[in-house]
Amino acid sequence: MTTRHIVAVGGSDAGISAALRARELDPASDVTVVVADAYPNFSICGIPYYVSGEVAHWTHLAHRTAADLAATGMTVLTDTRATRIDGDTHTLEVVESNGHSRHLDYDALVVGTGAVSARPPLAGLVGPDALGPAEGVHLLHSMGDTFEVMGSLTRRDPKTAVIIGAGYIGLEMAEGLTARGMSVTQIEALPEVLPTVDPELGALIHAELERHGVEVLTNTAVTAVTRGADGALTVSATHEGEPVSRTVDLVLVVVGVRPDTELAAAAGAELGVKGAIVVDEHMRTNLPDVFAAGDCVQTHHRLLGTTWLPLGTTAHKQGRVAGENTLGGDARFAGSLGTQVVKVFDLVAARTGLREHEALAADRGWAPVTTASSPDDHKAYYPGATPIAIRITGDQGTGLLLGAQLVGSRSAEVAKRVDTYAAALFHSMSVEAVSELDLSYTPPLGSPWDAVQVATQAWVREHRPTPENAQV
Amino acid sequence: MTTRHIVAVGGSDAGISAALRARELDPASDVTVVVADAYPNFSICGIPYYVSGEVAHWTHLAHRTAADLAATGMTVLTDTRATRIDGDTHTLEVVESNGHSRHLDYDALVVGTGAVSARPPLAGLVGPDALGPAEGVHLLHSMGDTFEVMGSLTRRDPKTAVIIGAGYIGLEMAEGLTARGMSVTQIEALPEVLPTVDPELGALIHAELERHGVEVLTNTAVTAVTRGADGALTVSATHEGEPVSRTVDLVLVVVGVRPDTELAAAAGAELGVKGAIVVDEHMRTNLPDVFAAGDCVQTHHRLLGTTWLPLGTTAHKQGRVAGENTLGGDARFAGSLGTQVVKVFDLVAARTGLREHEALAADRGWAPVTTASSPDDHKAYYPGATPIAIRITGDQGTGLLLGAQLVGSRSAEVAKRVDTYAAALFHSMSVEAVSELDLSYTPPLGSPWDAVQVATQAWVREHRPTPENAQV
Repeated sequence: MTTRHIVAVGGSDAGISAALRARELDPASDVTVVVADAYPNFSICGIPYYVSGEVAHWTHLAHRTAADLAATGMTVLTDTRATRIDGDTHTLEVVESNGHSRHLDYDALVVGTGAVSARPPLAGLVGPDALGPAEGVHLLHSMGDTFEVMGSLTRRDPKTAVIIGAGYIGLEMAEGLTARGMSVTQIEALPEVLPTVDPELGALIHAELERHGVEVLTNTAVTAVTRGADGALTVSATHEGEPVSRTVDLVLVVVGVRPDTELAAAAGAELGVKGAIVVDEHMRTNLPDVFAAGDCVQTHHRLLGTTWLPLGTTAHKQGRVAGENTLGGDARFAGSLGTQVVKVFDLVAARTGLREHEALAADRGWAPVTTASSPDDHKAYYPGATPIAIRITGDQGTGLLLGAQLVGSRSAEVAKRVDTYAAALFHSMSVEAVSELDLSYTPPLGSPWDAVQVATQAWVREHRPTPENAQV
Repeated sequence: MTTRHIVAVGGSDAGISAALRARELDPASDVTVVVADAYPNFSICGIPYYVSGEVAHWTHLAHRTAADLAATGMTVLTDTRATRIDGDTHTLEVVESNGHSRHLDYDALVVGTGAVSARPPLAGLVGPDALGPAEGVHLLHSMGDTFEVMGSLTRRDPKTAVIIGAGYIGLEMAEGLTARGMSVTQIEALPEVLPTVDPELGALIHAELERHGVEVLTNTAVTAVTRGADGALTVSATHEGEPVSRTVDLVLVVVGVRPDTELAAAAGAELGVKGAIVVDEHMRTNLPDVFAAGDCVQTHHRLLGTTWLPLGTTAHKQGRVAGENTLGGDARFAGSLGTQVVKVFDLVAARTGLREHEALAADRGWAPVTTASSPDDHKAYYPGATPIAIRITGDQGTGLLLGAQLVGSRSAEVAKRVDTYAAALFHSMSVEAVSELDLSYTPPLGSPWDAVQVATQAWVREHRPTPENAQV
């Protein structure tokens, strides 16, 4: 039996997961991970908590230390850029930090190049004179970006900031910079913050931001970022046709990411949704013995079919599948449901499955309808009960559960309540059948019908009031 | 169309759930609930929190007020005992508080008589001279019991107590009396407290009790309760053959319950497991048009088949099914998984499905094996991460998930993490497939592989190390 040579490109969730899985299943395999920067296996999702000061040292953000990774028997090449895949010879060209190039032979390759920050084409953010970290204008996606931000915080000692974008990282950074004592203005082009949930729930997050002193400008499109003679940064925007501007010490631009596919595309990998790499359920690309996983690939969604939905949880699952298959395995990625959660100050927002417009776009004949309710997280007589705002979306025709969105207090176990819906969706349960689940109850932590079930029962009452078996 | 007359016996979870469901589905139905005491729809599970002082007034323990119930259109007859079911004439004999009897006609009857406290046959607890509430010796299952306990607390101003039994209510009362400033000794005949979970996890609860000043005596069998001339109560017991005794001001006896089946049995209802009423999945007894639900019936368990497992969640589900079927419906109780949770001071213990000995007793050919792990509730770099002790039981032969037990801190969302396992068990997932669930993740509240999945992956590594599809 010959040693199998596995190479993974990318040191984040997908690449490392693939490498770990290969080493776990075949201790004789030779596994190399090529990492462009010096930070393999770092938690990108943890960056806001390092910037906020809650994580004491940046090294704590590593899921595993270099020693942990070495102990698994894998080889990690840091500060090494993968520059070319040669499918004919099954070699990967890499360039080391000293500029020297070398070639790695592979029997199987896993591309886990991830995503890169989107840079909006606005005056001051693009072009030869684009403002950057040196001027206090930052993107924030990598550890490198993080160190730049920390440098600005130290050097500029900013008191004020504008955050452009109110998605997950934008909201977490609003909390993080507020925790540092800064005055933050959050600007979102869409009508409500956290546009991944219905605006009725986004409004709760909006209010939470304001309750903690964040100025929130929605429906506000940034047009330019300019720098004054004194170094102050002015963010200009329009709100309902009227100009609005804020002059601050620091600007964060966190408006999303796009798949980083350059390496794979140059080798002939097919690209699909949003330019992400096309893969099958085994995480195989169209290139022989080349797998891909994580934020750089298009994602199988159990309800939507093919989409692009970069999430760390998905990257871990896909990387694990790819790693197993590099050894000749037959593992399959079971698909995403888009389960997501974010903490914003003292609130938690979570979702899984589809919202109405997404269910319609899936074009599967669904008639999605949504019911809102606000059941308490636990019995009202026990101290500390708080309502959870829950929106259940189901198909009026079949009664199929399509999605759930929740916003509640941090004490309300929202992050793990969404998981019950995720499990129900995984098994294509009807909204009504959720009431059959045997969920836990004790007065300090739940109700005899859990909030999860009170919400689905509200949907059933509104949209399927007379089950045929009760028509007497 | 003639009005349908529905009568439910019992004002707790099952009876009220049945009545609510009937009224919800058929607003023309005539629904009467016969309640032996004055406290319909009270939360028995909430009693410890009223005794502890956390619930300010006993009326807060009502799930719904009398006015709430009346507003649904049902009639509630309080202080009314159901004394005889006459199946031939379809009438229920009841006796009102004034001693007058009357007869209620029914088209369908739901028996929800619940359970009564077990009274161990010990010197001082049984017989003509048995000690009781007047002497500070209490059972605790009903609101009546509760008022007796509160009376003793006021009248005797006890400083010390023995709690006989360390199940759910015993543990909650240890916390509750400690919260009132009393010194508590908890006595359990079995080797560890909370015998519904494996002793490795019970030991964590044991330590938590001691950390809060509760004296815990396990492997200790009470032999007698005696009263001194000064009114002090002495609980005598044996511990590993040696006598041990404690003299205290108050004694609580909470060693379990048994089904209350007298009414149904007298009418000819068949009794089964532990003397509970035999019902089918429609909650029908063997008596025509007589349904039964809740703690008085034997329970369909999805893994065990028929058992007896009194739980409020189950009573709600069964009552709802019975209520629908009194109208001629075809609802079925989907079955219990025995999902349970209890908070003890700052820890939460939860379980769903089966432990090893239970899986063996199910006699379904399983080879149950268990793996323990202690994954953090969320990323360790974010403040406040705590390990959750998780024990996963699966069938070594098929890989089927059989059960999960968890103990973790109150902040660790244990109560809703057990629900993910409950949903997985409901759908007969393999231990390995739990990793396919798309669970939520954000660093303050979880991990990319949630603790739920880290624990199942540990089981797979230990018991099914080489998936056949990875044997290369």
